[in-house]
Amino acid sequence: MLGEIIAIGDELTSGRITNTTSGFAAHHLFEAGFDIYAMHTIGDTPALIGEALKRALKRVDFVLVTGGLGPTDDDLTTQAVSEALNRPTMPNLELLSLIRTHLEENSDQPVGSLDKLAWLPEGAETLNPESKMAGFQLIHRDKPIFFLPGIPHQMRTLLVEEVLPRLATWYKGHQQTSRQRIYKIFGKTEQEINLQIEQINLGEDVTIGYYPVFPDVHLSIIVRGDDQETTQSQAGNAFGLIEKVLGDFIYGRDKETMASVLGGLLMEQKKLFSVAESCTGGLISHLMTSVAGSSSYFLGGVTSYANSMKETYLEVEPALLERVGAVSPEVAERMAQGMRRKSQADISISITGIAGPGGGSDEKPVGTVFIGLACDEKTEVQRFLFSGNRYEIQHKTAQTALNLVRHYLLTQ
Amino acid sequence: MLGEIIAIGDELTSGRITNTTSGFAAHHLFEAGFDIYAMHTIGDTPALIGEALKRALKRVDFVLVTGGLGPTDDDLTTQAVSEALNRPTMPNLELLSLIRTHLEENSDQPVGSLDKLAWLPEGAETLNPESKMAGFQLIHRDKPIFFLPGIPHQMRTLLVEEVLPRLATWYKGHQQTSRQRIYKIFGKTEQEINLQIEQINLGEDVTIGYYPVFPDVHLSIIVRGDDQETTQSQAGNAFGLIEKVLGDFIYGRDKETMASVLGGLLMEQKKLFSVAESCTGGLISHLMTSVAGSSSYFLGGVTSYANSMKETYLEVEPALLERVGAVSPEVAERMAQGMRRKSQADISISITGIAGPGGGSDEKPVGTVFIGLACDEKTEVQRFLFSGNRYEIQHKTAQTALNLVRHYLLTQ
Repeated sequence: MLGEIIAIGDELTSGRITNTTSGFAAHHLFEAGFDIYAMHTIGDTPALIGEALKRALKRVDFVLVTGGLGPTDDDLTTQAVSEALNRPTMPNLELLSLIRTHLEENSDQPVGSLDKLAWLPEGAETLNPESKMAGFQLIHRDKPIFFLPGIPHQMRTLLVEEVLPRLATWYKGHQQTSRQRIYKIFGKTEQEINLQIEQINLGEDVTIGYYPVFPDVHLSIIVRGDDQETTQSQAGNAFGLIEKVLGDFIYGRDKETMASVLGGLLMEQKKLFSVAESCTGGLISHLMTSVAGSSSYFLGGVTSYANSMKETYLEVEPALLERVGAVSPEVAERMAQGMRRKSQADISISITGIAGPGGGSDEKPVGTVFIGLACDEKTEVQRFLFSGNRYEIQHKTAQTALNLVRHYLLTQ
Repeated sequence: MLGEIIAIGDELTSGRITNTTSGFAAHHLFEAGFDIYAMHTIGDTPALIGEALKRALKRVDFVLVTGGLGPTDDDLTTQAVSEALNRPTMPNLELLSLIRTHLEENSDQPVGSLDKLAWLPEGAETLNPESKMAGFQLIHRDKPIFFLPGIPHQMRTLLVEEVLPRLATWYKGHQQTSRQRIYKIFGKTEQEINLQIEQINLGEDVTIGYYPVFPDVHLSIIVRGDDQETTQSQAGNAFGLIEKVLGDFIYGRDKETMASVLGGLLMEQKKLFSVAESCTGGLISHLMTSVAGSSSYFLGGVTSYANSMKETYLEVEPALLERVGAVSPEVAERMAQGMRRKSQADISISITGIAGPGGGSDEKPVGTVFIGLACDEKTEVQRFLFSGNRYEIQHKTAQTALNLVRHYLLTQ
């Protein structure tokens, strides 16, 4: 079953307000087994509203229209629909009486303007009028059209409580079942993943989407079918194949983040973790502590942005800094060891590098980063050269460092 | 001049990703004097892409298409456009050679799949190919069509740097003149700002937009007119009135951030700054170091997430922690003083609090935060109670702390 969504309002087409309601509706309709063919955002222009609605009715099974239902002069949806579908507006007696009662109880409000809300196209049925949220349904040539307010929380409530159940009843048995999983992948490009996925046969009912969500790639797998049991077993099969071919490059799924996955491993292995950051400037600490409960495995860290901080807090010898420079494997090694010793962590990592835009040289260009990992048995330092602007280099460095610790813990 | 925006991607019509790029484009086009007639979001369906494009070309002066330009199999925009406009794809030699060079330098990447990026519809002109962002322009029957990647930061860069100037040149003299300014405000709600703005008379040609951009409110002021001189003088007048009424609550404008504004003040006053963070977990360091050049005034900091870190790195006495607890004015004071002394900063701040969701008590509920500021002449501690989830409490705390230092420097 296919639908279209039409969002109405000059505040949307001028970009003053970001349209979040259409995406919300699409997401919930999709989950309920309905596909969205197209979503449109148009201004408060009656001719365009009518045209968009008529075109949608020709090609899909239901339409959701949001916005333009209020009492003010720029709310033109009802009138536009009335003209487009040739259904004259008439007063809805139930709504009219509710509005009159409301006005009697609130005598300071202007009479008259609210009456407009009670005039609906012929055949319209109100959605939950007691809640004082404008919204109605029309069945036009056997296809349901839903009109909801543009105010996000009202629209969301009516969508979930009224539209979804009505739609499910109207098209009972026509919507498909679906299962979805998102794999979070770090260290492979979209193209590389695509090439690997092409080599396995996932079956016709599986839809794959690639979404670069910097610095990761998210891989969306959707399996749809007519009955729940088949869908379930096809999904199990597809998920298994994908996990096998991408292996360890998948660091998490759905709502997991690199920091939450790493946190889970640290907790499981009862290891305490701390970080010494130079060019990432606190980003790694911030990512680790954005996970609730991180205090049980994350001790904290030092942002040793200035060289003096590396000496004072991380016990890096001034002579060494002088001799090899702050961005060097030797300093990365000392930073990780100093951090681990003084914080009494089981594992510590260190970051020293050049995030740019200034500070690069031929020998150590912008993007050069050394990452050290100190643990019980050893200290290892790796050199990287990341591309991008300051933001990108900092985020790639942070994700790479956390991933190194994840790998270390997985191979213990 | 009227335009339409078409965003392409199954991830948008399934509601998995919220479409933020269309709103961004509408906003910037509007500012530049172009109006948006309609915005469409459609899936990766070639027939629908072609239909939407052809219909738009009939009724508006330019079209912006985003998404579906990548190298993977679900990227179908170029092919769909080629068919709809009857312009066969052909290899763009400049792009092809760039891709070949890139592949030679990165021999681990799969050959072949990237070549797809170089096949463009006949007559297409690439936008900024050196930047490795897909994107091209077609002039079809005298109307420009722009194709941009769906990845938000790439799309935004190309829109601002390539599309807006090209559009302005193509339709030179046809758009209205406009001036816009964004004011960044912290510490007032939308409604509070609205009440203050209502008391001044800004004139008819001034459009005001309120955008809550957590934890700030951004106030957009747009002045439009037919000639540059009048617009300029009306804008000057409006900006002056707004700055007067909101005063110090405006911390910056346009692209400035709290950290960049604070950085400017530190640099100006030649002051060195460091931070001791507990519940913000490195966020303040991260914000400070996300500004290029911050090494000239930001020394670094300590994320003392565990109590042991407060003792080892910040010289907080174990007996004090035992007696009053880590979340207390006394500990905040010691943290700020310890940080300042040891890092040899001019100004240091300290944060200790409860970001939640766990850890709250009747006496110190979740959201309780102490912020300490130590400088040459004094150490001051303030208590706050922030509402919201973990993310919100951490970000409100960080912004409040930076704003405190800004105020301190402004009143020096």
